[in-house]
Amino acid sequence: MAVNTIDLNAMGLAARKASRVLAKIPEETRNSALLALADLLEANYEVIIGANDIDQAKAQKQNLSEHMLDRLILTKERIRDMAQGVRDIANLPDPLGIHRDSHTLPNGLWVQKRSVPLGVIASIYESRPNITVDIASLCMKSGNSTILRGGKEAFTTNKALVTLIQKAFTSSGLPPKGVQLVESTDRKFVRELLRMKDHIDLMIPRGGESLIQEVSANAYMPVITGGIGVCHTYVDKTANVEKAKNIIYNAKVQRPTVCNALDTVLIHSDVIETHLPAIASELNRASVELHCDSQSQAILSELTSLNTIAATQDDWGKEYLSLTAAVKVVSSIEEAIDHIEEYGSGHSEAIITEDHSTAMQFLDEVDAAVVYVNASTRFTDGGQFGLGAEIAISTNKLHARGPMGISELTSYKWIVLGNGQIRN
Amino acid sequence: MAVNTIDLNAMGLAARKASRVLAKIPEETRNSALLALADLLEANYEVIIGANDIDQAKAQKQNLSEHMLDRLILTKERIRDMAQGVRDIANLPDPLGIHRDSHTLPNGLWVQKRSVPLGVIASIYESRPNITVDIASLCMKSGNSTILRGGKEAFTTNKALVTLIQKAFTSSGLPPKGVQLVESTDRKFVRELLRMKDHIDLMIPRGGESLIQEVSANAYMPVITGGIGVCHTYVDKTANVEKAKNIIYNAKVQRPTVCNALDTVLIHSDVIETHLPAIASELNRASVELHCDSQSQAILSELTSLNTIAATQDDWGKEYLSLTAAVKVVSSIEEAIDHIEEYGSGHSEAIITEDHSTAMQFLDEVDAAVVYVNASTRFTDGGQFGLGAEIAISTNKLHARGPMGISELTSYKWIVLGNGQIRN
Repeated sequence: MAVNTIDLNAMGLAARKASRVLAKIPEETRNSALLALADLLEANYEVIIGANDIDQAKAQKQNLSEHMLDRLILTKERIRDMAQGVRDIANLPDPLGIHRDSHTLPNGLWVQKRSVPLGVIASIYESRPNITVDIASLCMKSGNSTILRGGKEAFTTNKALVTLIQKAFTSSGLPPKGVQLVESTDRKFVRELLRMKDHIDLMIPRGGESLIQEVSANAYMPVITGGIGVCHTYVDKTANVEKAKNIIYNAKVQRPTVCNALDTVLIHSDVIETHLPAIASELNRASVELHCDSQSQAILSELTSLNTIAATQDDWGKEYLSLTAAVKVVSSIEEAIDHIEEYGSGHSEAIITEDHSTAMQFLDEVDAAVVYVNASTRFTDGGQFGLGAEIAISTNKLHARGPMGISELTSYKWIVLGNGQIRN
Repeated sequence: MAVNTIDLNAMGLAARKASRVLAKIPEETRNSALLALADLLEANYEVIIGANDIDQAKAQKQNLSEHMLDRLILTKERIRDMAQGVRDIANLPDPLGIHRDSHTLPNGLWVQKRSVPLGVIASIYESRPNITVDIASLCMKSGNSTILRGGKEAFTTNKALVTLIQKAFTSSGLPPKGVQLVESTDRKFVRELLRMKDHIDLMIPRGGESLIQEVSANAYMPVITGGIGVCHTYVDKTANVEKAKNIIYNAKVQRPTVCNALDTVLIHSDVIETHLPAIASELNRASVELHCDSQSQAILSELTSLNTIAATQDDWGKEYLSLTAAVKVVSSIEEAIDHIEEYGSGHSEAIITEDHSTAMQFLDEVDAAVVYVNASTRFTDGGQFGLGAEIAISTNKLHARGPMGISELTSYKWIVLGNGQIRN
């Protein structure tokens, strides 16, 4: 595994060169490469599973956690899902060559923006090998070159997958250097990648908080920061208790390990007696551990038989990624918004309210990628929003915010058509 | 001038706080602050000119070049133009609160993007004091806080201008910390600013190449890279000689010191005898110095009496910013495109051609912020493109490319309106 002779600079140059070719490939050819990849994945599932077995055996020796092991494992069914995902991407409308803001100036110049690929996109990511196929497919669709650096746990699986991706490229007439894998898990290559701003237009880290922080702090090129969600749901004094109960249960329990899951319930003091016991009892059905401020803990101990834990300062702004939630009582929507401003991560924030003005105030004043009224934060997802697949959920404000689909992997160039115009 | 006790961190915190307030200020109030600023500039022109005199006296002692001195000088007329520019910005449509991509999902969720301010924008710039007013006004209009660090040459003028801007803020009920000037020219504060990624959402350097390179290489936050334009105009074998002559003359001569001025003429070998002498003679009217490759030099010496200079390798990819142009003969459009790819800066590139397919090939394959057919590259400008004023011309591919107006100073948030929806 410790290949020490990788010439990343040569990879970068090859990626840039391939990106020039990819930018000219018609939609039909890009789609046929995607469909070829889907077929190759299904036809070669034994090869993939064989490679995955090697990774799994290693992981077991290294006592990887159950959770990590589960993310690593590929089965025939998971490979079929992966192939279906690739076909779904092939079926998305072409994000390239779209003309916007087209207008004719008084001097007759016809000015417009045309969507074009970004160029070279690199991703540094952790264990899940399906990210390899996801990112490569989204970049193929959007005409971008890709440099992938996956986690060491999935090293053999990723190599097998990239071999198939490159086969699909070659068989469809796409440049095979359009997708390249850094075939080493030596961390020095990560640091080197992060410095390659001339060859890489955008860096997308996918993984846990420490990976994202490391990439974001050390990259010289633009980075999509995302994947970290400290999500609040605020139960307003006018909240409908049924909606509050169901939405909070869904936001916390439906998939607690992801970034759009609920972390903190903020609740207006007017409704702690009427709403909080119902919400807490509902969460208790899934054995959610509640870390409560003193006021909510007092109410719950008085009115219910639920066990709760006293919250500490560390609970505010904590992303649990597990069946734990913090609960805090606030005396106004302003206090709720201030809390979110101080402790939120700018990902997904929700209010439960029946009052229109309060809903509008929350939407106006909360500064996050996605702001909800009366819905579960779990909807923050490219697929759910109708964008097709997503490459990341950005908490950046520049370029793209929230779920990023293939359109967000494009830039534009201005096209100006004239007939001899000169400037006065 | 050497104030060493500036607390940039406190400025950053104040800017962030002000940005939260600014984001809520209605359009009408933002516009009235702009109109108040325009009036204050005109009413206080003597104060401004007094401050500018101090800067000029210093600059003369330091033997600043004529060119730099001219950029520094403010006159009553220039101040009136500045005020008019601010009024023009006030009259632009509001870039905030615009809803896009609005759609209703099958589950009834109503999803849309709403344009919002970016937050805190900082700019590090050189001598021209009107940049102070330009950037502050564009940021006021778009609801962003601003931290300004102007050049030492204009230090006193910038202080006077920011005082007036803050007065306009206060008189209209905007937070005065919405515009702040770093009141020191000590370079250590530049380096400190570039590290303040938590407080600054976007950094815009305005000035010469070395400033832009320095900011781009050392900033931890996103940077708009721009202002450097190595611009080519390619004269195709089907070019109309009149159009070629007029467009090239305009692109080179109309304002040679700016980034969208022509640097290199590429000309197809089929038309060097018919077109090049006409183009060169036209440029000679303005005494443009031509740095020619051997083939074009031979033709010009044979067919005209013009003096030319033999080009060296350094001429390819050089931004002259003066009445100098390089000339190179190519044998195909592909060679022209390859040359542009190798030596261009991704700013503005033009083709002169009467052949439709050739025009389309140039538009498709040249990777630059703005690509022209039969028009002068001098049009690359927010005002010319109908965007109103511009804050910069970006050669980045992320976020915004080419002329950036107030819309490019916005981000968006996703707004999701529900009625109790949960995710399955």
